[in-house]
Amino acid sequence: MLKKFTYTTKTRLEMIDVTADVAQAVSDFGVNYGLVYVFSPHTAAAVTVMEATDPNLKKDLNHALSKLFPYKDPDYTHLGNNADAHLKVATLGAGQTLIIDNGHIILGEWQGIYLCELDGPRQREIYIKVAQGM
Amino acid sequence: MLKKFTYTTKTRLEMIDVTADVAQAVSDFGVNYGLVYVFSPHTAAAVTVMEATDPNLKKDLNHALSKLFPYKDPDYTHLGNNADAHLKVATLGAGQTLIIDNGHIILGEWQGIYLCELDGPRQREIYIKVAQGM
Amino acid sequence: MLKKFTYTTKTRLEMIDVTADVAQAVSDFGVNYGLVYVFSPHTAAAVTVMEATDPNLKKDLNHALSKLFPYKDPDYTHLGNNADAHLKVATLGAGQTLIIDNGHIILGEWQGIYLCELDGPRQREIYIKVAQGM
Repeated sequence: MLKKFTYTTKTRLEMIDVTADVAQAVSDFGVNYGLVYVFSPHTAAAVTVMEATDPNLKKDLNHALSKLFPYKDPDYTHLGNNADAHLKVATLGAGQTLIIDNGHIILGEWQGIYLCELDGPRQREIYIKVAQGM
Repeated sequence: MLKKFTYTTKTRLEMIDVTADVAQAVSDFGVNYGLVYVFSPHTAAAVTVMEATDPNLKKDLNHALSKLFPYKDPDYTHLGNNADAHLKVATLGAGQTLIIDNGHIILGEWQGIYLCELDGPRQREIYIKVAQGM
Repeated sequence: MLKKFTYTTKTRLEMIDVTADVAQAVSDFGVNYGLVYVFSPHTAAAVTVMEATDPNLKKDLNHALSKLFPYKDPDYTHLGNNADAHLKVATLGAGQTLIIDNGHIILGEWQGIYLCELDGPRQREIYIKVAQGM
Protein backbone atom coordinates (compact mmCIF):
# COMPACT_ATOMS: atom_id res chain seq x y z
CA MET A 1 0.00 0.00 0.00
CA LEU A 2 1.37 3.36 -1.03
CA LYS A 3 -0.46 6.51 -0.03
CA LYS A 4 -0.28 9.54 -2.31
CA PHE A 5 -1.55 13.08 -1.90
CA THR A 6 -1.60 15.70 -4.63
CA TYR A 7 -1.27 19.46 -4.24
CA THR A 8 -1.44 22.34 -6.68
CA THR A 9 0.91 25.16 -5.82
CA LYS A 10 0.26 28.73 -6.89
CA THR A 11 3.59 30.55 -6.60
CA ARG A 12 7.28 29.77 -7.09
CA LEU A 13 8.07 29.39 -3.38
CA GLU A 14 5.35 27.94 -1.21
CA MET A 15 5.07 25.80 1.90
CA ILE A 16 2.09 23.49 2.28
CA ASP A 17 1.28 21.99 5.67
CA VAL A 18 0.70 18.29 4.97
CA THR A 19 0.53 17.15 8.61
CA ALA A 20 -3.17 16.24 8.53
CA ASP A 21 -2.73 14.19 5.34
CA VAL A 22 0.19 12.25 6.81
CA ALA A 23 -1.86 11.58 9.95
CA GLN A 24 -4.71 10.32 7.76
CA ALA A 25 -2.35 8.02 5.87
CA VAL A 26 -1.01 6.53 9.11
CA SER A 27 -4.56 5.90 10.25
CA ASP A 28 -5.38 4.25 6.89
CA PHE A 29 -2.30 2.00 7.15
CA GLY A 30 -3.52 0.86 10.55
CA VAL A 31 0.04 0.58 11.86
CA ASN A 32 0.26 1.45 15.57
CA TYR A 33 4.01 1.31 16.19
CA GLY A 34 6.80 2.03 13.78
CA LEU A 35 8.03 4.69 11.38
CA VAL A 36 6.33 6.64 8.60
CA TYR A 37 8.25 8.23 5.75
CA VAL A 38 7.00 11.18 3.70
CA PHE A 39 8.74 11.52 0.34
CA SER A 40 8.70 14.11 -2.44
CA PRO A 41 9.39 12.47 -5.83
CA HIS A 42 10.25 15.91 -7.22
CA THR A 43 13.66 17.48 -7.74
CA ALA A 44 12.34 20.95 -6.97
CA ALA A 45 10.16 20.24 -3.93
CA ALA A 46 11.36 19.14 -0.47
CA VAL A 47 9.81 17.87 2.76
CA THR A 48 10.69 19.38 6.13
CA VAL A 49 9.59 19.06 9.74
CA MET A 50 9.73 22.45 11.42
CA GLU A 51 7.86 25.14 13.33
CA ALA A 52 4.41 25.30 11.68
CA THR A 53 2.48 27.60 13.98
CA ASP A 54 3.70 31.03 12.86
CA PRO A 55 3.05 31.50 9.12
CA ASN A 56 5.75 34.18 9.03
CA LEU A 57 8.38 31.47 9.32
CA LYS A 58 7.48 30.16 5.88
CA LYS A 59 8.51 33.54 4.50
CA ASP A 60 11.65 33.58 6.64
CA LEU A 61 12.74 30.14 5.48
CA ASN A 62 12.27 30.97 1.82
CA HIS A 63 13.99 34.32 2.21
CA ALA A 64 16.98 32.85 4.07
CA LEU A 65 17.40 29.91 1.69
CA SER A 66 17.19 32.23 -1.31
CA LYS A 67 20.08 34.23 0.09
CA LEU A 68 22.14 31.03 0.34
CA PHE A 69 21.05 29.69 -3.06
CA PRO A 70 20.07 32.73 -5.17
CA TYR A 71 17.57 32.36 -7.99
CA LYS A 72 19.30 32.54 -11.39
CA ASP A 73 22.77 32.99 -9.87
CA PRO A 74 25.08 33.41 -12.89
CA ASP A 75 27.48 30.92 -11.26
CA TYR A 76 25.12 28.00 -11.88
CA THR A 77 26.00 25.79 -14.84
CA HIS A 78 22.70 23.85 -14.74
CA LEU A 79 20.65 24.09 -17.90
CA GLY A 80 17.40 25.62 -16.79
CA ASN A 81 16.50 28.32 -14.33
CA ASN A 82 15.91 26.17 -11.25
CA ALA A 83 19.35 25.14 -10.01
CA ASP A 84 18.54 27.00 -6.79
CA ALA A 85 15.52 24.73 -6.25
CA HIS A 86 17.54 21.53 -6.72
CA LEU A 87 20.18 22.72 -4.26
CA LYS A 88 17.55 23.66 -1.67
CA VAL A 89 16.16 20.12 -1.90
CA ALA A 90 19.61 18.74 -1.04
CA THR A 91 19.67 21.04 2.00
CA LEU A 92 16.13 20.48 3.28
CA GLY A 93 15.81 16.84 2.27
CA ALA A 94 13.58 15.01 -0.20
CA GLY A 95 11.75 13.28 2.64
CA GLN A 96 11.24 13.13 6.39
CA THR A 97 10.66 10.31 8.86
CA LEU A 98 8.21 10.47 11.75
CA ILE A 99 7.61 8.10 14.65
CA ILE A 100 4.28 6.27 14.95
CA ASP A 101 3.38 5.43 18.53
CA ASN A 102 0.05 4.17 19.77
CA GLY A 103 -1.42 4.77 16.30
CA HIS A 104 -0.41 8.41 16.12
CA ILE A 105 2.43 10.44 14.64
CA ILE A 106 4.64 11.99 17.25
CA LEU A 107 5.10 15.71 16.77
CA GLY A 108 5.97 18.40 19.28
CA GLU A 109 3.42 21.05 20.13
CA TRP A 110 4.70 23.54 17.53
CA GLN A 111 5.90 21.14 14.84
CA GLY A 112 4.34 20.35 11.48
CA ILE A 113 5.27 18.62 8.22
CA TYR A 114 5.69 20.88 5.20
CA LEU A 115 5.90 20.13 1.52
CA CYS A 116 8.21 22.90 0.26
CA GLU A 117 7.49 24.03 -3.27
CA LEU A 118 10.72 25.53 -4.60
CA ASP A 119 9.95 26.05 -8.29
CA GLY A 120 6.20 26.42 -8.69
CA PRO A 121 3.54 26.82 -9.61
CA ARG A 122 3.17 23.10 -10.35
CA GLN A 123 1.25 20.02 -9.38
CA ARG A 124 3.08 18.10 -6.63
CA GLU A 125 2.69 14.76 -4.90
CA ILE A 126 3.91 13.22 -1.70
CA TYR A 127 4.26 9.46 -1.22
CA ILE A 128 3.84 7.94 2.22
CA LYS A 129 4.99 4.53 3.44
CA VAL A 130 5.22 2.90 6.86
CA ALA A 131 7.59 0.35 8.41
CA GLN A 132 6.46 -1.70 11.37
CA GLY A 133 8.09 -1.48 14.77
CA MET A 134 7.00 -2.23 18.30
CA MET B 1 7.42 1.07 23.23
CA LEU B 2 8.76 4.58 22.90
CA LYS B 3 12.09 5.45 24.44
CA LYS B 4 12.66 8.98 25.71
CA PHE B 5 15.73 10.70 27.07
CA THR B 6 15.78 14.13 28.69
CA TYR B 7 18.62 16.65 28.69
CA THR B 8 19.07 20.04 30.32
CA THR B 9 21.05 22.46 28.20
CA LYS B 10 23.01 25.32 29.70
CA THR B 11 23.65 27.75 26.86
CA ARG B 12 21.89 29.01 23.73
CA LEU B 13 23.91 26.87 21.30
CA GLU B 14 24.99 23.48 22.53
CA MET B 15 25.62 20.03 21.11
CA ILE B 16 24.98 16.98 23.26
CA ASP B 17 26.39 13.60 22.25
CA VAL B 18 23.44 11.19 22.62
CA THR B 19 25.10 8.18 20.97
CA ALA B 20 25.32 6.10 24.16
CA ASP B 21 21.64 6.74 24.96
CA VAL B 22 20.54 5.69 21.47
CA ALA B 23 22.66 2.54 21.77
CA GLN B 24 21.02 1.80 25.13
CA ALA B 25 17.55 2.26 23.61
CA VAL B 26 18.34 -0.15 20.77
CA SER B 27 19.52 -2.69 23.32
CA ASP B 28 16.32 -2.20 25.34
CA PHE B 29 14.14 -2.67 22.24
CA GLY B 30 15.90 -5.96 21.62
CA VAL B 31 15.72 -5.51 17.85
CA ASN B 32 18.73 -7.00 16.10
CA TYR B 33 18.15 -5.96 12.50
CA GLY B 34 16.37 -2.89 11.19
CA LEU B 35 16.34 0.88 11.55
CA VAL B 36 16.28 3.19 14.54
CA TYR B 37 15.03 6.76 14.37
CA VAL B 38 16.05 9.53 16.76
CA PHE B 39 13.62 12.45 16.79
CA SER B 40 13.60 15.88 18.41
CA PRO B 41 10.02 17.03 19.16
CA HIS B 42 11.32 20.60 19.46
CA THR B 43 11.25 23.39 16.88
CA ALA B 44 14.53 24.83 18.11
CA ALA B 45 16.58 21.65 18.56
CA ALA B 46 17.81 19.32 15.81
CA VAL B 47 19.46 15.90 15.55
CA THR B 48 22.54 15.34 13.42
CA VAL B 49 24.99 12.52 12.71
CA MET B 50 28.46 13.96 12.24
CA GLU B 51 32.09 13.96 13.38
CA ALA B 52 31.94 13.63 17.17
CA THR B 53 35.57 13.12 18.12
CA ASP B 54 36.94 16.66 17.99
CA PRO B 55 34.93 18.93 20.32
CA ASN B 56 36.09 21.96 18.30
CA LEU B 57 33.75 20.94 15.52
CA LYS B 58 30.74 21.70 17.71
CA LYS B 59 31.96 25.29 17.85
CA ASP B 60 32.65 25.32 14.11
CA LEU B 61 29.17 24.05 13.24
CA ASN B 62 27.45 26.60 15.43
CA HIS B 63 29.64 29.40 14.14
CA ALA B 64 29.13 28.47 10.49
CA LEU B 65 25.36 28.01 10.83
CA SER B 66 25.06 31.31 12.67
CA LYS B 67 26.69 33.05 9.73
CA LEU B 68 24.09 31.49 7.40
CA PHE B 69 21.15 32.13 9.74
CA PRO B 70 22.13 35.09 11.94
CA TYR B 71 20.59 35.49 15.39
CA LYS B 72 18.04 38.34 15.42
CA ASP B 73 18.54 39.16 11.74
CA PRO B 74 16.24 42.17 11.12
CA ASP B 75 14.98 40.43 7.96
CA TYR B 76 13.09 37.80 9.98
CA THR B 77 9.35 38.36 10.29
CA HIS B 78 8.86 35.62 12.91
CA LEU B 79 7.42 36.84 16.17
CA GLY B 80 10.06 35.94 18.72
CA ASN B 81 13.81 35.99 18.72
CA ASN B 82 14.47 32.45 17.57
CA ALA B 83 13.73 32.39 13.84
CA ASP B 84 17.38 31.44 13.31
CA ALA B 85 16.88 28.32 15.46
CA HIS B 86 13.82 27.17 13.49
CA LEU B 87 15.67 27.61 10.18
CA LYS B 88 18.69 25.69 11.45
CA VAL B 89 16.38 22.78 12.35
CA ALA B 90 15.14 22.72 8.74
CA THR B 91 18.78 22.54 7.58
CA LEU B 92 20.09 19.96 10.06
CA GLY B 93 16.94 17.88 10.35
CA ALA B 94 14.55 17.17 13.21
CA GLY B 95 15.65 13.55 13.30
CA GLN B 96 18.18 11.03 12.04
CA THR B 97 17.98 7.36 11.08
CA LEU B 98 20.62 4.77 11.94
CA ILE B 99 21.03 1.16 10.85
CA ILE B 100 20.75 -1.64 13.42
CA ASP B 101 22.76 -4.70 12.49
CA ASN B 102 23.51 -7.67 14.71
CA GLY B 103 21.97 -5.78 17.64
CA HIS B 104 24.19 -2.72 17.28
CA ILE B 105 23.93 0.71 15.72
CA ILE B 106 26.23 1.15 12.76
CA LEU B 107 28.42 4.22 13.05
CA GLY B 108 31.77 4.97 11.48
CA GLU B 109 34.83 5.29 13.68
CA TRP B 110 34.52 9.08 14.03
CA GLN B 111 30.75 9.47 13.90
CA GLY B 112 28.33 10.26 16.70
CA ILE B 113 24.73 11.36 17.15
CA TYR B 114 24.21 14.89 18.44
CA LEU B 115 21.17 16.62 19.83
CA CYS B 116 21.73 20.23 18.72
CA GLU B 117 20.33 22.83 21.10
CA LEU B 118 19.72 25.96 19.03
CA ASP B 119 17.81 28.20 21.46
CA GLY B 120 18.70 27.16 25.00
CA PRO B 121 19.04 26.91 27.82
CA ARG B 122 16.03 24.59 28.02
CA GLN B 123 14.96 21.09 28.89
CA ARG B 124 14.99 18.88 25.79
CA GLU B 125 13.89 15.38 24.91
CA ILE B 126 14.64 12.89 22.18
CA TYR B 127 12.24 10.13 21.19
CA ILE B 128 13.55 6.86 19.80
CA LYS B 129 11.69 4.22 17.82
CA VAL B 130 12.76 1.17 15.84
CA ALA B 131 11.41 -0.56 12.75
CA GLN B 132 12.21 -4.21 12.14
CA GLY B 133 14.25 -5.40 9.20
CA MET B 134 16.30 -8.46 8.47
CA MET C 1 21.85 -8.88 6.25
CA LEU C 2 23.78 -5.70 5.64
CA LYS C 3 24.60 -4.65 2.11
CA LYS C 4 27.81 -2.70 1.48
CA PHE C 5 29.18 -1.07 -1.63
CA THR C 6 32.65 0.39 -1.98
CA TYR C 7 33.74 3.30 -4.17
CA THR C 8 37.09 4.88 -4.88
CA THR C 9 36.90 8.63 -5.36
CA LYS C 10 39.44 10.52 -7.43
CA THR C 11 39.10 14.17 -6.41
CA ARG C 12 38.32 16.18 -3.25
CA LEU C 13 34.71 16.94 -4.20
CA GLU C 14 32.87 14.28 -6.13
CA MET C 15 29.34 12.96 -6.47
CA ILE C 16 28.80 9.30 -7.27
CA ASP C 17 25.41 8.09 -8.46
CA VAL C 18 24.67 5.01 -6.34
CA THR C 19 21.03 4.55 -7.43
CA ALA C 20 21.64 1.30 -9.32
CA ASP C 21 23.54 -0.22 -6.38
CA VAL C 22 20.74 0.67 -3.95
CA ALA C 23 18.19 -0.85 -6.33
CA GLN C 24 20.31 -4.01 -6.51
CA ALA C 25 20.47 -4.20 -2.71
CA VAL C 26 16.69 -3.88 -2.42
CA SER C 27 16.30 -6.68 -4.93
CA ASP C 28 18.79 -8.83 -2.97
CA PHE C 29 16.92 -8.21 0.31
CA GLY C 30 13.74 -9.45 -1.37
CA VAL C 31 11.60 -6.97 0.55
CA ASN C 32 8.65 -5.75 -1.50
CA TYR C 33 7.13 -3.12 0.80
CA GLY C 34 8.86 -0.93 3.33
CA LEU C 35 11.75 1.47 3.66
CA VAL C 36 15.39 1.29 2.63
CA TYR C 37 18.09 3.38 4.27
CA VAL C 38 21.39 4.32 2.62
CA PHE C 39 24.06 5.36 5.12
CA SER C 40 27.55 6.79 4.83
CA PRO C 41 29.73 5.72 7.79
CA HIS C 42 32.14 8.55 6.97
CA THR C 43 32.39 11.99 8.54
CA ALA C 44 33.43 13.60 5.26
CA ALA C 45 30.99 11.94 2.85
CA ALA C 46 27.22 12.43 2.73
CA VAL C 47 24.23 10.86 0.97
CA THR C 48 21.66 12.96 -0.86
CA VAL C 49 18.61 12.41 -3.05
CA MET C 50 18.46 15.09 -5.71
CA GLU C 51 18.34 15.87 -9.41
CA ALA C 52 20.67 13.37 -11.06
CA THR C 53 20.06 13.90 -14.75
CA ASP C 54 22.13 17.00 -15.46
CA PRO C 55 25.77 16.41 -14.47
CA ASN C 56 26.28 20.17 -14.20
CA LEU C 57 24.28 20.17 -10.97
CA LYS C 58 27.01 18.19 -9.24
CA LYS C 59 29.33 21.11 -9.93
CA ASP C 60 26.69 23.61 -8.83
CA LEU C 61 26.06 21.84 -5.53
CA ASN C 62 29.74 21.62 -4.68
CA HIS C 63 30.32 25.23 -5.69
CA ALA C 64 27.36 26.54 -3.69
CA LEU C 65 28.18 24.49 -0.59
CA SER C 66 31.81 25.58 -0.74
CA LYS C 67 30.68 29.20 -0.63
CA LEU C 68 28.65 28.44 2.52
CA PHE C 69 31.38 26.32 4.15
CA PRO C 70 34.70 27.48 2.65
CA TYR C 71 37.65 25.11 2.48
CA LYS C 72 40.31 26.04 5.08
CA ASP C 73 38.29 28.97 6.42
CA PRO C 74 40.57 30.52 9.10
CA ASP C 75 37.53 30.66 11.43
CA TYR C 76 37.49 26.88 11.85
CA THR C 77 38.99 25.59 15.08
CA HIS C 78 38.94 21.93 13.99
CA LEU C 79 42.33 20.28 13.91
CA GLY C 80 42.75 19.19 10.33
CA ASN C 81 41.88 20.75 7.02
CA ASN C 82 38.44 19.23 6.52
CA ALA C 83 36.09 21.08 8.86
CA ASP C 84 34.18 22.20 5.75
CA ALA C 85 33.54 18.56 4.83
CA HIS C 86 32.17 17.68 8.28
CA LEU C 87 29.83 20.68 8.21
CA LYS C 88 28.57 19.81 4.73
CA VAL C 89 27.70 16.32 6.00
CA ALA C 90 25.53 17.90 8.72
CA THR C 91 23.76 19.93 6.02
CA LEU C 92 23.27 17.20 3.42
CA GLY C 93 22.77 14.30 5.81
CA ALA C 94 24.77 11.16 6.53
CA GLY C 95 22.01 9.01 5.05
CA GLN C 96 18.77 9.01 3.09
CA THR C 97 15.60 6.93 3.24
CA LEU C 98 13.70 5.68 0.19
CA ILE C 99 10.34 3.97 -0.12
CA ILE C 100 10.15 0.38 -1.39
CA ASP C 101 6.88 -0.39 -3.12
CA ASN C 102 6.09 -3.47 -5.15
CA GLY C 103 9.74 -4.51 -4.90
CA HIS C 104 11.13 -1.26 -6.32
CA ILE C 105 12.57 1.95 -4.95
CA ILE C 106 10.34 4.93 -5.58
CA LEU C 107 12.15 7.79 -7.25
CA GLY C 108 10.81 10.60 -9.40
CA GLU C 109 11.75 10.75 -13.06
CA TRP C 110 14.74 13.07 -12.48
CA GLN C 111 15.85 11.89 -9.04
CA GLY C 112 18.86 9.81 -8.09
CA ILE C 113 20.82 8.88 -4.97
CA TYR C 114 24.29 10.36 -4.65
CA LEU C 115 27.18 9.53 -2.41
CA CYS C 116 28.83 12.93 -1.93
CA GLU C 117 32.59 12.78 -1.47
CA LEU C 118 33.58 15.93 0.41
CA ASP C 119 37.23 15.29 1.27
CA GLY C 120 38.65 12.87 -1.25
CA PRO C 121 40.27 11.16 -2.86
CA ARG C 122 39.50 8.22 -0.58
CA GLN C 123 37.88 4.81 -0.47
CA ARG C 124 34.25 5.11 0.63
CA GLU C 125 31.47 2.72 1.56
CA ILE C 126 27.72 2.90 1.82
CA TYR C 127 25.70 0.58 4.06
CA ILE C 128 22.15 -0.35 3.11
CA LYS C 129 19.43 -1.78 5.33
CA VAL C 130 15.68 -2.31 4.90
CA ALA C 131 12.73 -2.22 7.29
CA GLN C 132 9.56 -4.10 6.40
CA GLY C 133 6.26 -2.36 5.81
CA MET C 134 3.13 -3.23 3.93
